[in-house]
Amino acid sequence: MPDAQRKFTVSYTNLTIFVNHFTPNKRKIINDPLHGFITIPDELTFDIIEHRYFQRLRRIKQLGLTSMVYPGALHTRFHHALGAMHLMRQSIETLRLKGFPISEVEARGASLAILLHDIGHGPYSHALENCLVYGLNHEDISGLFMQRLNEHLKGELDTAIRIFNDTYPLRFLHQLVSGQLDVDRLDYLMRDSFFTGVSEGVISTDRIIKMLTVAGEELAVEEKGIYSVEKFVVARRLMYWQVYYHKTVLAAEYTLVNVLRRAKYLSENGAALFASPALAFFLANHITADDFRLDPNVLELFSQLDDFDIFSAIKVWTGHQDKVLSELSKALVYRTLPRVELRSEPFEAEYTESLKRNLKERMGFNEEESGYFIFTGSIANDAYIPFRDKINIVDKKGNITDIASASDQLNVAILSKTVTKYFISYPKELVSGNG
Amino acid sequence: MPDAQRKFTVSYTNLTIFVNHFTPNKRKIINDPLHGFITIPDELTFDIIEHRYFQRLRRIKQLGLTSMVYPGALHTRFHHALGAMHLMRQSIETLRLKGFPISEVEARGASLAILLHDIGHGPYSHALENCLVYGLNHEDISGLFMQRLNEHLKGELDTAIRIFNDTYPLRFLHQLVSGQLDVDRLDYLMRDSFFTGVSEGVISTDRIIKMLTVAGEELAVEEKGIYSVEKFVVARRLMYWQVYYHKTVLAAEYTLVNVLRRAKYLSENGAALFASPALAFFLANHITADDFRLDPNVLELFSQLDDFDIFSAIKVWTGHQDKVLSELSKALVYRTLPRVELRSEPFEAEYTESLKRNLKERMGFNEEESGYFIFTGSIANDAYIPFRDKINIVDKKGNITDIASASDQLNVAILSKTVTKYFISYPKELVSGNG
Amino acid sequence: MPDAQRKFTVSYTNLTIFVNHFTPNKRKIINDPLHGFITIPDELTFDIIEHRYFQRLRRIKQLGLTSMVYPGALHTRFHHALGAMHLMRQSIETLRLKGFPISEVEARGASLAILLHDIGHGPYSHALENCLVYGLNHEDISGLFMQRLNEHLKGELDTAIRIFNDTYPLRFLHQLVSGQLDVDRLDYLMRDSFFTGVSEGVISTDRIIKMLTVAGEELAVEEKGIYSVEKFVVARRLMYWQVYYHKTVLAAEYTLVNVLRRAKYLSENGAALFASPALAFFLANHITADDFRLDPNVLELFSQLDDFDIFSAIKVWTGHQDKVLSELSKALVYRTLPRVELRSEPFEAEYTESLKRNLKERMGFNEEESGYFIFTGSIANDAYIPFRDKINIVDKKGNITDIASASDQLNVAILSKTVTKYFISYPKELVSGNG
Amino acid sequence: MPDAQRKFTVSYTNLTIFVNHFTPNKRKIINDPLHGFITIPDELTFDIIEHRYFQRLRRIKQLGLTSMVYPGALHTRFHHALGAMHLMRQSIETLRLKGFPISEVEARGASLAILLHDIGHGPYSHALENCLVYGLNHEDISGLFMQRLNEHLKGELDTAIRIFNDTYPLRFLHQLVSGQLDVDRLDYLMRDSFFTGVSEGVISTDRIIKMLTVAGEELAVEEKGIYSVEKFVVARRLMYWQVYYHKTVLAAEYTLVNVLRRAKYLSENGAALFASPALAFFLANHITADDFRLDPNVLELFSQLDDFDIFSAIKVWTGHQDKVLSELSKALVYRTLPRVELRSEPFEAEYTESLKRNLKERMGFNEEESGYFIFTGSIANDAYIPFRDKINIVDKKGNITDIASASDQLNVAILSKTVTKYFISYPKELVSGNG
Repeated sequence: MPDAQRKFTVSYTNLTIFVNHFTPNKRKIINDPLHGFITIPDELTFDIIEHRYFQRLRRIKQLGLTSMVYPGALHTRFHHALGAMHLMRQSIETLRLKGFPISEVEARGASLAILLHDIGHGPYSHALENCLVYGLNHEDISGLFMQRLNEHLKGELDTAIRIFNDTYPLRFLHQLVSGQLDVDRLDYLMRDSFFTGVSEGVISTDRIIKMLTVAGEELAVEEKGIYSVEKFVVARRLMYWQVYYHKTVLAAEYTLVNVLRRAKYLSENGAALFASPALAFFLANHITADDFRLDPNVLELFSQLDDFDIFSAIKVWTGHQDKVLSELSKALVYRTLPRVELRSEPFEAEYTESLKRNLKERMGFNEEESGYFIFTGSIANDAYIPFRDKINIVDKKGNITDIASASDQLNVAILSKTVTKYFISYPKELVSGNG
Repeated sequence: MPDAQRKFTVSYTNLTIFVNHFTPNKRKIINDPLHGFITIPDELTFDIIEHRYFQRLRRIKQLGLTSMVYPGALHTRFHHALGAMHLMRQSIETLRLKGFPISEVEARGASLAILLHDIGHGPYSHALENCLVYGLNHEDISGLFMQRLNEHLKGELDTAIRIFNDTYPLRFLHQLVSGQLDVDRLDYLMRDSFFTGVSEGVISTDRIIKMLTVAGEELAVEEKGIYSVEKFVVARRLMYWQVYYHKTVLAAEYTLVNVLRRAKYLSENGAALFASPALAFFLANHITADDFRLDPNVLELFSQLDDFDIFSAIKVWTGHQDKVLSELSKALVYRTLPRVELRSEPFEAEYTESLKRNLKERMGFNEEESGYFIFTGSIANDAYIPFRDKINIVDKKGNITDIASASDQLNVAILSKTVTKYFISYPKELVSGNG
Repeated sequence: MPDAQRKFTVSYTNLTIFVNHFTPNKRKIINDPLHGFITIPDELTFDIIEHRYFQRLRRIKQLGLTSMVYPGALHTRFHHALGAMHLMRQSIETLRLKGFPISEVEARGASLAILLHDIGHGPYSHALENCLVYGLNHEDISGLFMQRLNEHLKGELDTAIRIFNDTYPLRFLHQLVSGQLDVDRLDYLMRDSFFTGVSEGVISTDRIIKMLTVAGEELAVEEKGIYSVEKFVVARRLMYWQVYYHKTVLAAEYTLVNVLRRAKYLSENGAALFASPALAFFLANHITADDFRLDPNVLELFSQLDDFDIFSAIKVWTGHQDKVLSELSKALVYRTLPRVELRSEPFEAEYTESLKRNLKERMGFNEEESGYFIFTGSIANDAYIPFRDKINIVDKKGNITDIASASDQLNVAILSKTVTKYFISYPKELVSGNG
Repeated sequence: MPDAQRKFTVSYTNLTIFVNHFTPNKRKIINDPLHGFITIPDELTFDIIEHRYFQRLRRIKQLGLTSMVYPGALHTRFHHALGAMHLMRQSIETLRLKGFPISEVEARGASLAILLHDIGHGPYSHALENCLVYGLNHEDISGLFMQRLNEHLKGELDTAIRIFNDTYPLRFLHQLVSGQLDVDRLDYLMRDSFFTGVSEGVISTDRIIKMLTVAGEELAVEEKGIYSVEKFVVARRLMYWQVYYHKTVLAAEYTLVNVLRRAKYLSENGAALFASPALAFFLANHITADDFRLDPNVLELFSQLDDFDIFSAIKVWTGHQDKVLSELSKALVYRTLPRVELRSEPFEAEYTESLKRNLKERMGFNEEESGYFIFTGSIANDAYIPFRDKINIVDKKGNITDIASASDQLNVAILSKTVTKYFISYPKELVSGNG
């Protein structure tokens, strides 16, 4: 680890899990432009929300760099987690009204499972998922956080963890947390649509929730909710192409990944890099699942990382002497993003090569360095994957069918087909023309 | 300047004003959940928006730390500036339709003046306005940025600057930029209401704009728009007390100010402090209006500061050895904010003293140190100040009156009265009870 | 009764109270653009909604002739009654969560009381309240309908009726039905604002409901809800002047009243008038509270009256040989409404006289006839009447104060003052000029 | 014509086309909850809106009896026509900004063409289209009204009529009035979705309009608007099945048709029927296109018909001695609608027969009479018909393709396939079970 960081390293080992002392009036409500008001249902939930592990989510944007295209898209995983909890409680209320018995313990377990389902996300979430730690994804880390919290809460999260891991008998509770039509998706589609201003993504969450039921042991939707589900599948697909895979968003996210890759490369080779202690740690070390297991401080350090660590470092790196790092950083900070071309067939190697030759000449980069600026890849979307988790439709006689066959209006089978697109990314200056 | 910073300092002197090369298709539209779509009207406007001075506003939240209470309130000055420009263009269109001749040059000038009116805001805007630079406010700095941009744009901003400075003959254009009923306020009230989810602040911007006119040489509102203006005055007042002066927001902002005050104190006394180069510069030096005037690099360094510099430093300072700094920092990062009591009369000195004694005992602080944690102050609100800039109401016969006397429904004169409230702030642990 | 009507009179005496047979699945939801979905909570409620007494409300617009100014304002008392019931259930849920025990019987009683509170409204509600029946208002008739239904429902409405009449011990339930801050007002302010498109009337119903509590035995609002209540008082006042008392709405409503007055006059003098049997009955007879009491068929006939009876007759009357009737009818059907002048002082008799002279000359009307076209009057608004039903505010220590004194932001006392305006109405042709 | 009507018949022959005298200030704005404010652009437009032909549209609901299922769906053709005009003006502004020259005369022509496109709709529009007049549809009658108005306006509608009839050179103006993606559809999809509260139908009208362009001589959409167009196609399809073809809406509309059929049958056989003079005329006579051509009073009488004539008559008919008429009328007025079963295959004749047998026994109806209560039919939907009017997509290089082939995300070809459903309708009492 380079000198500079060592100096500022906090002694994180002596941090204790902080749980606020109970105060009398904890029935709080939180304003949500989407759902109106979100009620914190009990003291345990309140304390978990107040915990710094959870407060960290206030500093992790739900959509990473999407705000570079949709400037309203600054909403955080904190707000999303609260919103998803709100929908979970509505769903449970609906199911109870329809006569499915769900105990208070189960209701709270499901509510906490969804509240915590994303607590393991790192900064800039998906974009950086494989750049800072290796061999475990954000769900694994959510699991680690839940376990750590559960130890301090003396088992209060037992049911939540079983529901999260799908080892609890009432399987539909897990399906509400994580399935083809879970409250996670319902909240994020609505929320992303609301904050981006892309009205294409608007879905009728209220109606879908009113139509939820349980068939067999599985979550299902009443037949008359079929149009709302179709709309949900279509909206999700359209949000993919219009927002999540927007060309400029891709350009920003790949640039971010390359900034981090370069920073790690430089850091591992001993270069001085401005970074917070937590970020410096993950840049200088190759952290794997084993490290989390063997050293409790690793999770603690991870809990200190958020969007601020990353972007404030990148801002400083715009002046770094390594030209690759500084140019990539400038592209993000000054928003001089590369161009991305998207199409249905792969790009020819020759196209890539000619662009690289051009870049090498202009900037004096070698092959490896130019790979940070010019690269190809593919993205794939499948709005609905019928064989993994079905969306069950139940008719009045109790027959269960999958939405893909129940729908005679919309060819969901076709919507379910994976669409793959290929892209190439390169600095705008290399090719003239609009775009 | 301490060693630590020197190491990372970018050589900011060789930065050049960056203006994108013109690309063919610049008639862009930007999604705004509030206004639908905002059209960038011309290439000059597009280039200014793309400039890194303006892009910086993407990283300065409109409402500072308000998101600690209203988690949706993450919208930025970037989005607000675009929205206000959008309303300016609608206002001009309305006035033209009513027969007031406004040339293209004037329309563009007014549009750019409002676009740039807030470009001088520093990180966490109002809260830190007097903590990083001295003797000049954000409007002065907006003026400096506009001047700097105008030099590079060879005078293209001349009209915008004259409108901004109120030296342009058509005074109503300046009043649209800055007055009692300007497009700045119209946009921010709507936007703050939208993103906080506080529906109390909703105003009928469309209607107010349709009712705008010019009377004498002044901006005015047609008589039948009187209810909308009354509603605007009321909404503004309510937003003050419910959002801008919310107790927890005050608690967060005063804590932020004290963090910075302490950091500056430590920095000026030679302590090592994690900070970006730009922040380190403003911490280590006492920068005044003269410094901006004498050294062009000062403005350049200022242009590198945003919310990321501040909060990423504070996160690291939670582990600093100075107990005052680390405790204040933790209060922000872990959201263990002090309690604020608000009331109509000043607090007795004895109350403050007893709290301080309590704190000194618990934490071993001296008098000066305890002043960072326990303090009193006052806030004042005046939704409408009749004597500064009136809101003119014009009746059908052309008579002009001030809203405060034109309105017989609502006692605007009373609404205009300044309400002062006194507060005391102290760590929650010092006093038991709910809050 | 003239011959013409007799021919079509239905034999209303053999109508029986119709109650649908129970069908298995009655947990219905109804779409409401305002509240999302409204759930019909039980079979009894479902059957009452299906009853033709209640279905009649589908044909009575909430805002009478307001749609002549705000074309979206076509919403009905049917939709409003459902919406108010929805808010009642939310209010009860909030109060229960705060620990106030409300039994299922009481909850259903309050819910049905609000559902039925307006069932006695006649066509074009307020405008015609004193034109068709005499000596009893719509609330009295609501009481009659509730009693009639209760007989057929074998006492199922007992609690609802006691709550409606304020003879039930839990007084706050009555206050939720009818008070300064009842769910009736909350729903209609929101709904009227929504359908007119007048965003000035938007209120934060969700927030007000979350702040409801019970203090002493009275309904009250928690102190932190004070801004929302202030906003409610202001919004209500503004809706009065901008919508309910809009000059053109007044013009239309007074014209409607005069059409009916003239028709009754003609009918009582034996003229043939196109009318449905039910309308013919109320035109030809002077029906009082006694008539309702003595003859059960009177209520039955009243239950057949709705907006369709009135306006379809007026359409035909545009061709009637009585010039007063036909001219007034044309003003409504062809929307050639009279002009209304509004001001703070009464109009001089001389002004009225000169207009009448002018009209008599032009149209050959006598004094009495010209009184249908030219008349003066006054309207008064009081957004909040402190001495009748207070809006109680409770602080954390349990102290109760009235909003008019609790609010130091807004001078509610001044808002509470009755504002009286005087108007004169006359045909547009009589005076040239804009308007 | 039976006696009863004769008595009330207005002397409609002496009605003159009424055009308001010009008043000075006619730049009016109209509130629209959907679009905010709609500006009336000029005096000619104002006068046409004020004309009683156009005012009649205030009394014709856009969605007929749909409010029996969606109680908010009371919006009228009047409001829709204004909204579509508003979108037309926005579309023209967009096209002008993109460099397509459209003269003032053309802009006004297109604006008036869309304003008047639906003026020929009769009461309960689609449902009754073939019940009151024969051999001409509402578009033909719109043409007749436009011609009649044009005579009185001395040719001011010449361009509007040519655009309406698709004989004006700029074909894209006609396509904006009537095509696969016209402003008529854009407004009605949004409006129907808004007032029903069915959020599934929300479309991004703003975005589609911003993406409009002209390619060749045809209206087209820029390539990047492709997702919004796909969403529009999907939303339209879903609105069909969820709203326009909702089972209960079908039940109500077919009942309405049968009421009118029976009333005509009775009227033509000399029975006395309560009806306004205008309705009586169309009941007693078989009016064809020739009648409109030969007698100018026929159009005049048609202009007196609206929803009020129909429903007020039906209300009275609930007491008619003809059992078929009274039972059908009660079903509408008391909302005891028949059951509708929908499925993908035709119903067997035996099923119909057994239901009829059952009905005949219960009610003593003969074969013909029972046909009013029990009948089968089919409905078909095609959201997008590729071969009639294409939706052209233009890419950056100017290539034009049809949306059905341009879209690789959504199989529009499949969406375009006509879906046919078969239904059977019968009184609920005949079959037990839920529904």
